[in-house]
Amino acid sequence: MHKLEKSVNNITRAILNDYEGTRTIDEVKTFDHPDNEDIINIIESLRRIVFPGYFRNKSYRVYTVRNNISMILEDVIFKLIRQISIVLRYDEKYVMLNDDEINDNAERITFEFLDKLPKIREYIETDVQAAYDGDPAAFNKDEIIYSYPGLYAILVNRLAHELFLLGVPLIPRVMTEHAHSKTGIDIHPGATIGKNFFIDHGTGIVIGETTQIGDNVKVYQGVTLGALSTRGGQSLRNKKRHPTIEDNVTIYSGASILGGETVVGKNAVIGGNAFITRSVPAGAKVSIKNQELRYNFDSPIEQVEKADLDPEENWFYII
Amino acid sequence: MHKLEKSVNNITRAILNDYEGTRTIDEVKTFDHPDNEDIINIIESLRRIVFPGYFRNKSYRVYTVRNNISMILEDVIFKLIRQISIVLRYDEKYVMLNDDEINDNAERITFEFLDKLPKIREYIETDVQAAYDGDPAAFNKDEIIYSYPGLYAILVNRLAHELFLLGVPLIPRVMTEHAHSKTGIDIHPGATIGKNFFIDHGTGIVIGETTQIGDNVKVYQGVTLGALSTRGGQSLRNKKRHPTIEDNVTIYSGASILGGETVVGKNAVIGGNAFITRSVPAGAKVSIKNQELRYNFDSPIEQVEKADLDPEENWFYII
Amino acid sequence: MHKLEKSVNNITRAILNDYEGTRTIDEVKTFDHPDNEDIINIIESLRRIVFPGYFRNKSYRVYTVRNNISMILEDVIFKLIRQISIVLRYDEKYVMLNDDEINDNAERITFEFLDKLPKIREYIETDVQAAYDGDPAAFNKDEIIYSYPGLYAILVNRLAHELFLLGVPLIPRVMTEHAHSKTGIDIHPGATIGKNFFIDHGTGIVIGETTQIGDNVKVYQGVTLGALSTRGGQSLRNKKRHPTIEDNVTIYSGASILGGETVVGKNAVIGGNAFITRSVPAGAKVSIKNQELRYNFDSPIEQVEKADLDPEENWFYII
Repeated sequence: MHKLEKSVNNITRAILNDYEGTRTIDEVKTFDHPDNEDIINIIESLRRIVFPGYFRNKSYRVYTVRNNISMILEDVIFKLIRQISIVLRYDEKYVMLNDDEINDNAERITFEFLDKLPKIREYIETDVQAAYDGDPAAFNKDEIIYSYPGLYAILVNRLAHELFLLGVPLIPRVMTEHAHSKTGIDIHPGATIGKNFFIDHGTGIVIGETTQIGDNVKVYQGVTLGALSTRGGQSLRNKKRHPTIEDNVTIYSGASILGGETVVGKNAVIGGNAFITRSVPAGAKVSIKNQELRYNFDSPIEQVEKADLDPEENWFYII
Repeated sequence: MHKLEKSVNNITRAILNDYEGTRTIDEVKTFDHPDNEDIINIIESLRRIVFPGYFRNKSYRVYTVRNNISMILEDVIFKLIRQISIVLRYDEKYVMLNDDEINDNAERITFEFLDKLPKIREYIETDVQAAYDGDPAAFNKDEIIYSYPGLYAILVNRLAHELFLLGVPLIPRVMTEHAHSKTGIDIHPGATIGKNFFIDHGTGIVIGETTQIGDNVKVYQGVTLGALSTRGGQSLRNKKRHPTIEDNVTIYSGASILGGETVVGKNAVIGGNAFITRSVPAGAKVSIKNQELRYNFDSPIEQVEKADLDPEENWFYII
Repeated sequence: MHKLEKSVNNITRAILNDYEGTRTIDEVKTFDHPDNEDIINIIESLRRIVFPGYFRNKSYRVYTVRNNISMILEDVIFKLIRQISIVLRYDEKYVMLNDDEINDNAERITFEFLDKLPKIREYIETDVQAAYDGDPAAFNKDEIIYSYPGLYAILVNRLAHELFLLGVPLIPRVMTEHAHSKTGIDIHPGATIGKNFFIDHGTGIVIGETTQIGDNVKVYQGVTLGALSTRGGQSLRNKKRHPTIEDNVTIYSGASILGGETVVGKNAVIGGNAFITRSVPAGAKVSIKNQELRYNFDSPIEQVEKADLDPEENWFYII
């Protein structure tokens, strides 16, 4: 036990020594750090407000809604003002302000954000409808609200995007990375998304910071809406690096659409695994050439045939 | 503070006003909602029953098993009857029944489901063996049971599939979406899967509702067993839209097999990234043609060579 | 209620009967099992030590660090010795030792592991810098530490890899599978990774057990560093099956690099979706041939055009 104590002391000393060096991950901050757990709590509370009566194992009755909602809201407001106060210090615009001024700004931003909730609900309602219309496996809308990862990722983007527009550092990204962790869908809070957005399955989707998406767009698993090259690193910051997707576009699984000047026109359909680096005209159905397949058999009678898929029938696909 | 109070009241009023509109996400339900947390608890308890002695930091001793199991089981039964009672109301077959009748049906379904547990354990035992046999990185079977995401996704599918067959709405999908969230593997509860099923790595796998999978099948990360098109939306419901995979088939990473009439015959091997929309005969090894690669060099001596991969050696691959 | 009790008894009996068979998943262990929750706690505590002052909603002040760190460290030491004691029994080298001897070994390993913490912090510092330099969307380093899934996966690999090198069974894999679950990034604890490693987005990445990665390497979502075939199963154990990636290599999204003898030379760039099964010389930029795309239009004026992407400009891409 004495030996153990000595070992503990040695390790503690070694680590404290290491802290006394000049590592950039050890900067002593004179201000607080944000709290990931509080931010996740805020998401879950806002989700309860957006879908009243869901995510609670109790009846949703009209006469209790008022109390319920104001209780949840007060909790969100308290936490959000606190977290925004902390992260505003990261922005050089706010860094010189005193505590009261920071707090006033955090309050202002919090209420401006909450004012967007009815609009967010308006959009989310259309997303639920789009998922129901688009997925033959959907049993009813409750199933979508309770279990569809795509809807969760869209909701979190719509919340985080409003905070992003209000200039809040860090918190929007923590929010969307929480959704990424839960769903495998990585939408940057900077991405702008229209109504009736439907994501099916979703794992592996990446939607970059400066992407613009119109109304009634459908996206399947593994789709990347990305940049052509980020070799410029920080020098590319704030430039439009990601594509524009116009209304009524469908993008099937595994497709990549890349580049800030790439525009996919209205009603276009992008086939699975297509790799698009230039604009696509409105109404086009883009597909990749059929793969040449090779068939081998171990059995005595060797056979090699080429696949002659009917391109008219098969060039787009999904799920 | 007075200002803050006023702001809180304003926001609350705005949201309550928004609830009084006609949004389809606000329908006042006269019945309760299911509880995601309870459903996840049920999965974890069933997992403890399927693998006795694991997932508890205490010795597994035979003489305590009886008490332990009946305690866990009673908890599962209580929660499952409650959750099934709630969701049966979603099915028009049950919606007119009174509370006692609903409860009787929920009890009946719960016990019919639990009767399947020995069969589920029989299948899961073969899945653990298949993972051990198939993965050179597997240290022992405990490592598979404790840490392999593929096994977790298969277990949840086997549980959810039995509830799906018993006609339980919503809960099976909540279960498989929980597994999807944890593992990146998206298996619809409707999918039917034979013995000795092995999923390696798994992230990005999608297996659709009407997929049929035989015994001894192996599937790697990024594989889609999907529909050719879901543009028909809800009109395609209950149609076979996803493929049939016969016994002893191996499907390497990134391959897509699509369409309800597509059958991959016994012992076939589907190479990585292959895109299959028509049936594959038994015993075939299907591979995509080698990519033509381009090599550029910044150095003075420019070189361009074509890759001349040996197709016989390299056309199937994995992990 | 009487009926319900009878049903519970029947089910309990059926399951206990099933346990009395000879299923390989029911072996009665004479020793304890590891505890996933404790192992996850250990990861989170170590993360707090690696990034002092983060992941706590309170100020980081120098004069409290000593107490704070030694408290967290003592907790880690206690849990780690306990968990390692349990898993050492899985290794035939230790299975015959008595409890005291096992405990001594667990203590020795725990402290040898903790001695690596300063080195791990040295490497992680370079990883944070690499993410900041490489990603135009990164606001500051705190955003990376708080929210980037790639950094989380790398940290867990660096911790788990040291335990792997010390011969600890099971725990390293439980750690990396926890990171896999949270991030969609699947790095085996056996993989060796140099300084300045950057993973962007990350979902779908698979890095196999015997992979060797040099310094300053960048990897994007969906990349596989894998084996050419694992059909040999357990017979391939401990063989080098996965590639070697030298310094300053960039691998764009969806690329696969396969095989234990495949070496990607210094400064090489592997283009998106490339499928590499043989070595790539230093300095090469490898890209796949441009896809032939097909454009169809429903409108009266039918148009079919081939894509004539400029290969010089577009052959590498990202995000």
